[in-house]
Amino acid sequence: MYIIAVYDMEADRTHLMLSLLRRYLTHVQNSVCEGEVTEAQHAVLTEEIGDVVKPHESVILYQLRDDNWLNREIYGDDPMDDHRFI
Amino acid sequence: MYIIAVYDMEADRTHLMLSLLRRYLTHVQNSVCEGEVTEAQHAVLTEEIGDVVKPHESVILYQLRDDNWLNREIYGDDPMDDHRFI
Repeated sequence: MYIIAVYDMEADRTHLMLSLLRRYLTHVQNSVCEGEVTEAQHAVLTEEIGDVVKPHESVILYQLRDDNWLNREIYGDDPMDDHRFI
Repeated sequence: MYIIAVYDMEADRTHLMLSLLRRYLTHVQNSVCEGEVTEAQHAVLTEEIGDVVKPHESVILYQLRDDNWLNREIYGDDPMDDHRFI
């Protein structure tokens, strides 16, 4: 399945969620990661997210069967061109 | 079509993108809006985004034909429960 993950963490805890998500997904913008995962990876990922996230923080996982029907338009600078996002 | 918009703006210009997106979409998390728009609304919206966004800022618009195949999982607090997001 294809996942887009957006997160809103306490500033000093953002790196925890980012490093977790980067084990499975690609960092595409500040607080946004996406990528293809297996069902098994998804199960582990959601459990790990549940362990990391605290009250007043949130993570939304958008799940699609695949990205065939997903069109992506980028305005402004493509953050993927920025070395921070490699 | 269904749109998920994620933006990364200069801190003092975030409100400009948010108020533009809220004319068409629902604010669901910090820097994330989503909703159903017509083709005509999409055309106007993308033009307006292009007018507002500056270099070193970015907006990614994920477009889906509809949200029938979109599953949404929320971890932590559902930001939609927060009055900031109404």
